[in-house]
Amino acid sequence: MDKIVRIDMGAEGGPQVRTESMGDYAGMGGRALTSSIISKEVPPTCHPLSAENKFVIAPGLLSGSAAAMSGRISVGCKSPLTGGIKEANSGGQPSQMLGRLGIAAIVLEGKPDGNDLYKVLINKDGVKIEADSSLCMLGNYDTVDKMKAEFGEKVACISIGQAGEQKLSGASVAFTDMEQRPTRHAGRGGVGAVMGSKGVKVIVVDDTDCSVRSPADPEKFKEANKTFVAGLRGHAVTGQGLPAYGTNVLQNVINEAGALPTHNFQWGRFEGCSKISGEAQAELENQRGGEGSATHGCHRGCVIRCSGTFYDKDGVYVTKQPEYETVWAHGSNCGIDDLDAIAKLDRMDDDFGLDTIEMGATIAVAMEAGLAKFGDAEAAIKLVGEVGKGSPLGKILGSGAAVTGQVLGVERIPVVKRQAMPAYDPRTVQGIGVTYATSTMGADHTAGYAVATNILGVGGSVDPLKPEGQVELSRNLQIATAAIDSTGMCLFIAFAILDQAETFQALIDLINGFTGAELTADDVTELGKKILSMERDFNQRAGFTAKDDRLPDYFKNEKFPPHNITFGVKDEDLDQVFNF
Amino acid sequence: MDKIVRIDMGAEGGPQVRTESMGDYAGMGGRALTSSIISKEVPPTCHPLSAENKFVIAPGLLSGSAAAMSGRISVGCKSPLTGGIKEANSGGQPSQMLGRLGIAAIVLEGKPDGNDLYKVLINKDGVKIEADSSLCMLGNYDTVDKMKAEFGEKVACISIGQAGEQKLSGASVAFTDMEQRPTRHAGRGGVGAVMGSKGVKVIVVDDTDCSVRSPADPEKFKEANKTFVAGLRGHAVTGQGLPAYGTNVLQNVINEAGALPTHNFQWGRFEGCSKISGEAQAELENQRGGEGSATHGCHRGCVIRCSGTFYDKDGVYVTKQPEYETVWAHGSNCGIDDLDAIAKLDRMDDDFGLDTIEMGATIAVAMEAGLAKFGDAEAAIKLVGEVGKGSPLGKILGSGAAVTGQVLGVERIPVVKRQAMPAYDPRTVQGIGVTYATSTMGADHTAGYAVATNILGVGGSVDPLKPEGQVELSRNLQIATAAIDSTGMCLFIAFAILDQAETFQALIDLINGFTGAELTADDVTELGKKILSMERDFNQRAGFTAKDDRLPDYFKNEKFPPHNITFGVKDEDLDQVFNF
Repeated sequence: MDKIVRIDMGAEGGPQVRTESMGDYAGMGGRALTSSIISKEVPPTCHPLSAENKFVIAPGLLSGSAAAMSGRISVGCKSPLTGGIKEANSGGQPSQMLGRLGIAAIVLEGKPDGNDLYKVLINKDGVKIEADSSLCMLGNYDTVDKMKAEFGEKVACISIGQAGEQKLSGASVAFTDMEQRPTRHAGRGGVGAVMGSKGVKVIVVDDTDCSVRSPADPEKFKEANKTFVAGLRGHAVTGQGLPAYGTNVLQNVINEAGALPTHNFQWGRFEGCSKISGEAQAELENQRGGEGSATHGCHRGCVIRCSGTFYDKDGVYVTKQPEYETVWAHGSNCGIDDLDAIAKLDRMDDDFGLDTIEMGATIAVAMEAGLAKFGDAEAAIKLVGEVGKGSPLGKILGSGAAVTGQVLGVERIPVVKRQAMPAYDPRTVQGIGVTYATSTMGADHTAGYAVATNILGVGGSVDPLKPEGQVELSRNLQIATAAIDSTGMCLFIAFAILDQAETFQALIDLINGFTGAELTADDVTELGKKILSMERDFNQRAGFTAKDDRLPDYFKNEKFPPHNITFGVKDEDLDQVFNF
Repeated sequence: MDKIVRIDMGAEGGPQVRTESMGDYAGMGGRALTSSIISKEVPPTCHPLSAENKFVIAPGLLSGSAAAMSGRISVGCKSPLTGGIKEANSGGQPSQMLGRLGIAAIVLEGKPDGNDLYKVLINKDGVKIEADSSLCMLGNYDTVDKMKAEFGEKVACISIGQAGEQKLSGASVAFTDMEQRPTRHAGRGGVGAVMGSKGVKVIVVDDTDCSVRSPADPEKFKEANKTFVAGLRGHAVTGQGLPAYGTNVLQNVINEAGALPTHNFQWGRFEGCSKISGEAQAELENQRGGEGSATHGCHRGCVIRCSGTFYDKDGVYVTKQPEYETVWAHGSNCGIDDLDAIAKLDRMDDDFGLDTIEMGATIAVAMEAGLAKFGDAEAAIKLVGEVGKGSPLGKILGSGAAVTGQVLGVERIPVVKRQAMPAYDPRTVQGIGVTYATSTMGADHTAGYAVATNILGVGGSVDPLKPEGQVELSRNLQIATAAIDSTGMCLFIAFAILDQAETFQALIDLINGFTGAELTADDVTELGKKILSMERDFNQRAGFTAKDDRLPDYFKNEKFPPHNITFGVKDEDLDQVFNF
C-alpha cells in the first residue's frame, strides 16, 4: 500500500487519473488517512457538494494482509449531513482487495461539468474511467449485477444507489460483501451524496493476480495473529454472543436496560421486543434458510462472524441478516415488531443506498408528524419507497431526520450535529450520551462505544444512569476507536482488547510484526488523540463550537421511562472530553 | 402603552391571559422590547417550535401616537429558519391600534397540548381566546374575511396562513393594511411558524373607543412632527422616488448598477428588467386601476406613501403593489419578466403567509435544481401553489432556500445563517454584503441598508465595488437601524435623517416631546448598540460564532458579471463590525 489514486472528476476533457506516492501521508491508513487528507486539503467552509470537497476511500493499515479482522474501510469527506468532517466505516470485500492492489486511498476530486455518470475500474493494470448512462438511477443491487456481468463474478464494488445520485444527505456508500452483494455500507453522514456529486456511480475493484501483503516480520506477525484470534474466540462477546445471534443480540439486552429508544425516543422499552430480538431472528433464520444466523463474516479474514443471511418464508434471499441498529431503527423506534418488514426495509435501504440508522430515525420523526402511525410497517415501507422513486417526499426523508423534522414542523428531533442518534437512549446510557454529544462525527455510537462499559460490563463498569465517570469513559473510548479505525480492524475487537491485556498486546504485536515498527500502547493512544484533534480542528474551522457538543434540550428536560431520568452530564464536563 | 399581555397557550385547562406592567421592560418598544424579552426569557438552545420559545408582537415606542411614520411593528422569537434571535418588522394597522389600546407587547408562551387552533380578540374590554376549527388551513385573505364578518369591518388582524399552520420555516405573519387586507408581513425568519406552533391562527385587534396617545410635551411634539414631515417630503427619495414609483423604483437602479441578482445570483443584470421596473409597474397600474401607484401608506400616519394597488387587466384587485424585493425575488432572480405573474405570486405568498424574499430565492434554487426552467412563470406559480396545498414539495419549498437546496442537492444557495439574501448581490454592493454576513438576523438588507450609501448616494458615498469603508458603513447603519426599529418608525425615514441633520434632530425631538425624556443623538446610538449586543449575545449562547458571520464560499470564489468581481471584505474585517 504505497500509492494514492487521485481522480480529478472536473478536469478539462473528462476525468484524469494521477497516481501519487504517499508523501506526507506515509504510514497512515483508514481513518487516520481519510481525516488527514480532508483536514489538509479541503477548505472547511466549502459546500459539501462543491468541487472543493474531496471524497476519500481508504483501506486500513493492515488491510490486504493476513491479519484477522483487517477488512474494514474508511470513507472520508466533509459531510453534507453534519457540515463537519466525516469518516464512515464499512466492512465488505473492497478493503482487502484494495490493500492487495497496493492502494492506500482513492481520492475523488473536483466535479464534472455535465450530468454524466461514471464507472471506475481498478485492477492490476491501473484505473479506467468511463461514462455509462445505463447506470442512472439504478439501485445498488442492479448496479452490482451489471458490473459482475461486465467485469466478472469475482469483482468487488463500491457504489451508490438512487439516494447518492440524488445527493441526499442520508445517502450511504455500498461495499459488496463476500457473496458480492451490496450489503455493507459506509452509512453515516451522507457520504453517498458526495460520491454522487463527483458523478461516480460505482468503483469496481478487481484484485486478480494480486497477492496478500507480506509482513515485515513474518514470524512475529503470525504468532501475534494466533494470539489475537485466540483472544477474540475466548471472549464472551466476540466468541459467543456475536457469532450466535449477530449484533441483534443487543435488542433484548438494551430493552432490559430500559435504554431501547421506542416511538421516536419517547420511552426505553418496546413491547414488541421479543418478536424482533436476536434470539427470535436466529430462530426464524434457522427455520427458513438452514444456513442459520451469524454464520459468516462480512469480509475475508473475519473470525467473529456476526453476519448472516435473511430469507423470506419461501426461502428466497431478502437481505443480509439485519444488524441491531437497523432492527432497532426500523423496528422498536418505529413501533414495528415484524422481522420480515424490517428485513424488507433493510433491503430497500441497501438498494437505494441509505443509512439505516438515519432512515429509521427519520421515519419515526415522520410518524410523530402524523405521516404514518407508529407500528404501521406497510406505511414505513411505502415511505422509504418514496426515496427510491425520487419523489419530493422521498427527497425530504432521504435528507435525514433533521431536515425531515424541520420540514414537517416536528420539535423532538433526536440528532447531534444534525446526525440521528443510534439505538441507545443517552438518558439511560449516559456514557454513550457523552459520545453522541462530543464526537467529531455527530451522534455516533461507534465513535466511543460506552455501552460496552455502561451496560455490557466490558472494560470495567460505569453506572449507566449516573453522570459520574462518563466523560473519562467516552474520552478513552473515542481515542482508542480513532486508532482502531485506522488499522482496518473491525471495531468489535474492542470487546476483547478492553478486557484482555494479552489480546491488546497481540494487536500491537500484529501491527509491529506487519509494519516493522515498534509501537507501544502509548503510541496507539497518541495516534488516536492526534486523529481526534485533527478532526476537531477541522470542525472548528468549519464553525463548530462547544455549543455543537450538546444533546437537544429535550434530553435534558424530558424524563425518559422506565427509569424516568434526564441526561445529567453537565455542559462544562462535556467540554472536558477533548481536554487530553 | 403600559402593559404586556401574556397568553400562556400551554396552561392547564386552556389558554390563560395575564396582563402585566412593563417592569424591567419600561420605556422599550418595537425591536428593543422583542429582543429584550427573547434574550431574557427564552433559552437560546431551545427548539424554535418548543414550549420554551416565545412569540412577541410589539408596536414601536411612538406607535399609537400622532407622530408621522410611527406605525411599524416588531415580531420577535427564536427563529426556526436561522436558529438565532429574530425581529421581523411589518407595516399595517395593528401597530397603531395596539398602541392606542395601551399594549406594549403581546407575548404568546407555552404550547397547547392538542391541535386546536385559536383566535384571539383584543379590545378595550380585554382579551378573549377561543378555539375555532373553521379556520384550519385557511389563507390569510379568508381568515381576515371571517374575522371582519364576526367582529366588524374596522378590526385589524394579525394572522398566519397555511404556511404558518404547517410550521414552515419560510412562514410569515400577516398584518392587515389600511384597506383591511392581509398584505403587510413580518416576513423573515419563519416567525409565522412560531405563531403556528403556539396554536394561534389570528389575533383580532379592535381599538374602538380608544384615543390617540398623548405626548408629554404636546407643543414640542407637534413642532417636531411638522419639521420631521417637511424633511421627509423635501428629500428626493422619500419625497419623490418612493411616492412616485414605490419601492420598485429600485429595479432599474440596481440593474443599472449591475447588482441585480439574476437566475439565482448568477449575474447582475436582467434582460427583462425594463418590463418589471417601477416605471413599467406604475404605467400598468395607472392604465388599469386609475388609482395609480404609490398613492397611499400601509398604515395611518404615513407621509411617504410608497404603497399602491395592483389590479388585473379587468380591473379586479389582485394584491397590493408588489414591493421591489418581491418583484426581484419572483422576477429577476427567477428570470420572470411578467408583472401579472409576479403580482399573482405576491398574492399567493400573502395568502399562504410566506416571506416573498425567501420564496423567490427558493424558487430560483429549485430552478437551478431543474424543477422548472428559469423564466417559466407558470411553473413558478405552480410551485408556490404547492405550499398552499401542503404537499411534500410545498413543504420543502416553504421551508426556505437552505432546506430546498439541501434536499434538492444544489450547491449554490445564497443564504447567510440559513436565511436567503435579498435583492442586492453582495459582490457588487459590498457594503450590503457586510450586513448580510454579520447581521444578527441572517442575510437581511433592512438590518443595515448600505445600498443607500453604496448606490443611492444617501448618507455620503462609499464605492460599492471595493471593500474599503464597508465595515464602518454597515456598522453605523446596523446601529441606527436597531434604534429606529424600536421607535415604530418606518425605516425609510433613514434616507432623510441620514442626509438632513435637521430631520434627524426632529426625530429626536419627536421622541423627547412624546416621552418627556431628554435623549441626545448619542443616546440613540447607545440604544442601537445595546440592542445589537443583546441580540449577538443571544446568538452566541445559541452557538453562533464568527464562522456564521460569513457569506457562502462561492461569493468569494465566483466572479459576478458584469463587474466580474468577488466579495472582497476580509474575514478579519467582518469580525470588527461589532467592535463598537
